[in-house]
Amino acid sequence: MTAAEEDRAARLLLSIVGEPGDPRLTGLVAQVGPVEALDFLRARGRRGELGSGLAERIATARPEQTLQVAERRGLRFITPADEEWPGTLVDLEGAPTLHERGGMPVGLWARGPLRLDEAVSGSVAIVGARSATTYGTGVADSIAARLADAQVPVISGAAFGIDQAAHRGALASRGVSVAVLACGADRVYPTAHTALVEYLAESGLVVSEAPPGGAPTRIRFLARNRLIAALSAGTVVVEAAVRSGALNTANWADCLSRVLMGVPGPVSSAASQGVHLLIRNRNALLVTCAGDVLEAVGPIGLATSAARVVGGTRPRDALSRLEQEVLDAVPLRRGAGADRIARVAGLPPETVVRTLATLHEAGFVERSADRWRLAASDPSVAPAGSGGGEFVP
Amino acid sequence: MTAAEEDRAARLLLSIVGEPGDPRLTGLVAQVGPVEALDFLRARGRRGELGSGLAERIATARPEQTLQVAERRGLRFITPADEEWPGTLVDLEGAPTLHERGGMPVGLWARGPLRLDEAVSGSVAIVGARSATTYGTGVADSIAARLADAQVPVISGAAFGIDQAAHRGALASRGVSVAVLACGADRVYPTAHTALVEYLAESGLVVSEAPPGGAPTRIRFLARNRLIAALSAGTVVVEAAVRSGALNTANWADCLSRVLMGVPGPVSSAASQGVHLLIRNRNALLVTCAGDVLEAVGPIGLATSAARVVGGTRPRDALSRLEQEVLDAVPLRRGAGADRIARVAGLPPETVVRTLATLHEAGFVERSADRWRLAASDPSVAPAGSGGGEFVP
Repeated sequence: MTAAEEDRAARLLLSIVGEPGDPRLTGLVAQVGPVEALDFLRARGRRGELGSGLAERIATARPEQTLQVAERRGLRFITPADEEWPGTLVDLEGAPTLHERGGMPVGLWARGPLRLDEAVSGSVAIVGARSATTYGTGVADSIAARLADAQVPVISGAAFGIDQAAHRGALASRGVSVAVLACGADRVYPTAHTALVEYLAESGLVVSEAPPGGAPTRIRFLARNRLIAALSAGTVVVEAAVRSGALNTANWADCLSRVLMGVPGPVSSAASQGVHLLIRNRNALLVTCAGDVLEAVGPIGLATSAARVVGGTRPRDALSRLEQEVLDAVPLRRGAGADRIARVAGLPPETVVRTLATLHEAGFVERSADRWRLAASDPSVAPAGSGGGEFVP
Repeated sequence: MTAAEEDRAARLLLSIVGEPGDPRLTGLVAQVGPVEALDFLRARGRRGELGSGLAERIATARPEQTLQVAERRGLRFITPADEEWPGTLVDLEGAPTLHERGGMPVGLWARGPLRLDEAVSGSVAIVGARSATTYGTGVADSIAARLADAQVPVISGAAFGIDQAAHRGALASRGVSVAVLACGADRVYPTAHTALVEYLAESGLVVSEAPPGGAPTRIRFLARNRLIAALSAGTVVVEAAVRSGALNTANWADCLSRVLMGVPGPVSSAASQGVHLLIRNRNALLVTCAGDVLEAVGPIGLATSAARVVGGTRPRDALSRLEQEVLDAVPLRRGAGADRIARVAGLPPETVVRTLATLHEAGFVERSADRWRLAASDPSVAPAGSGGGEFVP
């Protein structure tokens, strides 16, 4: 076995026997590497602080068999040595533990046609309450659809409520959507979402830190939330009660210096209380539409994928503030007249007409008859996304 | 005539002939005083940059007659020499001009039984869209009522929509409410609000920078907005479209370093768009209830009326962060069980029960059976208000 093969085999075994996001395990692997970590655990056996069961599980595990099952079910095992391992996950090594979960995963299991690194590059996580209102699911669906239009992948957790709406909005726009699950990537939880998760596995990706067949336990949801936050450039929380699990994802986004965003709602709605607290006390950015989200994660997307900047055109953050304000008011799909754009931007119509002409020359907006809309090749959006059309099934 | 009488007479004349918030006039008075300013304007006559009409208006004005009319209509003229002149208005002298309005008024006209300085001490302005939704008026009414319960005066502009709801909420709680008008304090605009404004004049105060009989012009609304912001410790914007006049008041609050607050709403509501922009781009504090508002303006109220701090009790800002978080979750009027308070605060019930006991000892909360509510004598609230019951008619 080469060192690389040995590394991979050790990670596979640790992924099968360890608990997702166990900081003692991820911390040990970060310090000494997977091979030494495995030797160490085998040697310490029952006396190890990782729990008396781990050495036994290591001894009885059948990794080759698990791998065969996984392959039959369309799963692949990904490690940091693989090209598709997202570089951004390394941020988890420097981050604290929350609810006793933390660290970079020893490996990930994925199902679907896309490369993981590309599918999550410049992506946005949309998370929120399972018991969402129609207001919340409507907003999540709409933001996801418009992000997908702008070639920005949407990550969520395939749960009821906001998660479901986010995936569906992205899929309806033929966009890239990635589900990160608490159970094995070959399973579906809740089972009512079987069709949704299958669609994601066919068109995008279904990812999990838990091994094939793994059950969705409470602690695995907490471990999963850190991956959603870590894999995305920013997290949008749409509706969350004061005790919502979505706030755990928000905390991770904050810890990992990702852009944390919240969609406000009626102050009378309990489902929006948690979001209002995030905006009020945690400095989450208030966002009301996909344009706000793109503005917030755009520059980060550009920074992390600088190599892909479309040649010859100015990136969005090189625009003047006025140009950016006007551009933010231009609709993504259906066009709008200059008057309407002026109203949305809160700027004088003459200024807007003049600025639209400049933006048109620079290739940011398209005109048809009297209506303006964002150019399909908007250089600010494409590089923040994950490569565009190539990912659409 | 004594110097004081001369100063007052000059301010009276300038108030009658000048335009509210004309920065050339207020600036001149700030530099040389009202007597010299008047001499200067008389001497320069038609050539003065303050407009060709001013010298003529000075020559033909009958201030004694105006004063008689004012007295018949229950108005009094207030100058910086009067005890009831609010010291906070001096902040306007250092502030910039917005929309060509600015500076400290040369005088104010008031109608009502309260002292102006006391009626606005620690007060909160609640402003917003005239074309408000039922959601917006409901929130404005509720916040105003609860501020009034906490003895915090509510300032607004007596307009349709949010203004009306704010005044009514405060009045319904038998609180102090002050209307600052763009027209003369003896007039009512809109006339549909005659009963409302009369009630305010009987129980609180109606204030204007415009002389008796003055018409409500566009420029006077802009001048009036700066007074609403300047007279209050903080401004809450409840619903404002992107082009709402309430955003002018918000700008003034910002310029004057008052606490700027905004109530979020559904992102699909045009009436909330302006507020969302304030929170997003102008750093307005997101508030969802009177408790949030009290927390934000409390310390400022305490600071500006430090002399009135209730002896023997700790002010609210001396509480620990945990104690403040629990206190914020305790309802003002109807009590709540510890479990509900824990849910609202997002804290473990045991912690909340323990903290409630401490807060009870310190006199911040009252207990009846299993329910907790804010103590009527909450030392954090009383000094931020304007003296409490004495102002209730």
